[in-house]
Amino acid sequence: MAFELDRDRFVETMKYQAEVGATENGGLHRLTLSEADKEIRDWFLEQMEAEGLEITIDEFGNMFGYREGTDPDAGTILVGSHLDSQPYGGIYDGQLGTISALELVRTLNDEGIETKHPIEIVNWTNEEGSRFQPAMQGSGVWAGDHDLAEEYAKTDEDGNVLEAELERIGYKGDTPATPQRDYEAGLELHIEQGPYLEENDKQVGVVTGVVGFSWGAITFTGEADHSGPTPMHYRQDALVAAADVITQVRRIPDTLGERTVGTTGYIDAKPNSINIIPEEVTFTWGFRDPEKAVIEEARERVLEEAEYAANREGVEWEYTDRHWTDPVQFSEQCIDAVQKAADDCGYDSMEIVSGAGHDAVHVAKEMDTSMVFSVSEDGKSHNESEYTSWDDCYTAANTLANAALNLATGDEQ
Amino acid sequence: MAFELDRDRFVETMKYQAEVGATENGGLHRLTLSEADKEIRDWFLEQMEAEGLEITIDEFGNMFGYREGTDPDAGTILVGSHLDSQPYGGIYDGQLGTISALELVRTLNDEGIETKHPIEIVNWTNEEGSRFQPAMQGSGVWAGDHDLAEEYAKTDEDGNVLEAELERIGYKGDTPATPQRDYEAGLELHIEQGPYLEENDKQVGVVTGVVGFSWGAITFTGEADHSGPTPMHYRQDALVAAADVITQVRRIPDTLGERTVGTTGYIDAKPNSINIIPEEVTFTWGFRDPEKAVIEEARERVLEEAEYAANREGVEWEYTDRHWTDPVQFSEQCIDAVQKAADDCGYDSMEIVSGAGHDAVHVAKEMDTSMVFSVSEDGKSHNESEYTSWDDCYTAANTLANAALNLATGDEQ
Repeated sequence: MAFELDRDRFVETMKYQAEVGATENGGLHRLTLSEADKEIRDWFLEQMEAEGLEITIDEFGNMFGYREGTDPDAGTILVGSHLDSQPYGGIYDGQLGTISALELVRTLNDEGIETKHPIEIVNWTNEEGSRFQPAMQGSGVWAGDHDLAEEYAKTDEDGNVLEAELERIGYKGDTPATPQRDYEAGLELHIEQGPYLEENDKQVGVVTGVVGFSWGAITFTGEADHSGPTPMHYRQDALVAAADVITQVRRIPDTLGERTVGTTGYIDAKPNSINIIPEEVTFTWGFRDPEKAVIEEARERVLEEAEYAANREGVEWEYTDRHWTDPVQFSEQCIDAVQKAADDCGYDSMEIVSGAGHDAVHVAKEMDTSMVFSVSEDGKSHNESEYTSWDDCYTAANTLANAALNLATGDEQ
Repeated sequence: MAFELDRDRFVETMKYQAEVGATENGGLHRLTLSEADKEIRDWFLEQMEAEGLEITIDEFGNMFGYREGTDPDAGTILVGSHLDSQPYGGIYDGQLGTISALELVRTLNDEGIETKHPIEIVNWTNEEGSRFQPAMQGSGVWAGDHDLAEEYAKTDEDGNVLEAELERIGYKGDTPATPQRDYEAGLELHIEQGPYLEENDKQVGVVTGVVGFSWGAITFTGEADHSGPTPMHYRQDALVAAADVITQVRRIPDTLGERTVGTTGYIDAKPNSINIIPEEVTFTWGFRDPEKAVIEEARERVLEEAEYAANREGVEWEYTDRHWTDPVQFSEQCIDAVQKAADDCGYDSMEIVSGAGHDAVHVAKEMDTSMVFSVSEDGKSHNESEYTSWDDCYTAANTLANAALNLATGDEQ
């Protein structure tokens, strides 16, 4: 018989957190380091204190609650996600993962269950990356992937400095934003943000890794002639070249892999006037795949297509690589712990590769890690229509809890 | 022996006018109703007065200088263009046509030539349409194609009202902005703004008409999902649909006619973020051709393509027609007068259809009209690199002068 969270309290807690920064349309607007974020942090701190956890707030605002284990030599199991949201985002996202971690220690306390390994729950600062960039900033600083001083200096649209905002809401702690314990493993529950679980009629996802990605921008430069008297064969039209490559960004993924995606999210044309042939157009590519070689191939292909288009339209071209992230392969130990948890609970599960980045990617630099995915209806996320039923939320939370227990009792194999 | 303008004075006058609002790179920045426009108007007024012309400034700032004919019953021949420029435009454009008209009456006076028909020269207000829209505004009001009160109320980017600007520079006249005389015919010299004369190694163009055009905008509306976890087959990507149609706007003209052109000059994508699938994209089409049926066909084809693309990408679509102008066929009488002038001067000429609109399009509503085109090197216009050699300027000016004389002496046939 698997360990079971208190379903009613869990759902009630999910509903409570969804009220802090609630939007009219049932979504959540709880930008990092905002008043709403302060309010949910204060509440989360109280809940952790009420459970007798040992609290750490680090200098980047990451919040930890530590529950001792029985073996002083056993490494800590880190479980959690984030409580901040996108602008007018959904109420599930990573909030589900953080509330599930809280519910885990609550139920362990209620039932007087001791674990060999300590369990620490966490709420990472600024996972969303919408108010301050980049996304997954708190876990990134903590894992040493970003420089603390550099991230402190980041500003939002209104010029507010991140460090000052941390101080303002009272969450610039004294503890260094680096791992302070000997960690054994990490687990994170997050909504899938994609349609694969639903498409495959599965209840929960066992996440084996995270796709890598290549982001970049291409600029074509032609000539801004009058759109009337300039014959077609005289033109150096930067937008025609861009349009051609954008259709290739759409087509390349289907020729590469089942999980390959390609997106042009951004385009800017100059002078952008109905009566003038576009002189300069900049647009982006973004390719993701679980395999590094596939991402490399997609990037090379789009650059080839850009060169063809430039030659065809008689325009100049240049490109910039904006970002590269290698795919992440999670640890067998943790994947197995999640799979065993789903099986023990009798949930219909599948292995899945995450299409989006998560705090777990940074955490994986420091310890063995895996993730649990809940169903995302229609694959929607980052907007108010994001939806996961309470059944699916609870299923995923129970899977997380059992996986954590598997790891914390040390008899997961 | 054809009539000949004073080449040295003509070139000197062209150079003088190019200094009023000159840019560092040899171009012209003389926006309508600006200080530079006031200065060139004051100078033009003086020149007309010096030639003994009867001056009319109408309530829209259009400037006329009338030279009497010998036959009181003979209709007036209207000759001229505009002195305003694009932002950082070229020094030739329509300035060449206005200076040539001035040089015509100067030479007629010098040589004591009387004409049966009166000759009136004109400088139209705001041909360019960059500070205040639309282009060809002064001739449009004058010909009754635009409403005076509506155009008076137009504002520039800084909120300056057109009527107040006319008053400020002292060019809101008392005469109604409507035809005040019995006109026989109109002539305008302008640079070609296209490459056809140069490509065909011709010295001057006999303009038989002006292409018509269709302008419109298409909006695709899809869904703004996260670019990572959303599989390609789940997407409703408004930019992919737009890119496809933009490549069709490029391709459709080549399937229709030698003179058909198609342009997407404007595009706007939302939310325009590298990591989000574009939800809403608006872009424009513009098709031009000498044949109305061809323009109609191009417009229908692009709307068909928009529907295909919308169905393929699973996005909604809608469109707006922004503007439609029928092609203009100039009068045989005036075309013949221009052709005879070019032949009499021994210039190598060709018939040509204008790819851009001109004041002559409005003038043609009121009287028989034609135009003379000068060579535009590399077809460039509306920027500082616009260039026509003094030889080519003079050739076109002489053609205009002789065509006007052909019409004014009444023995053009």
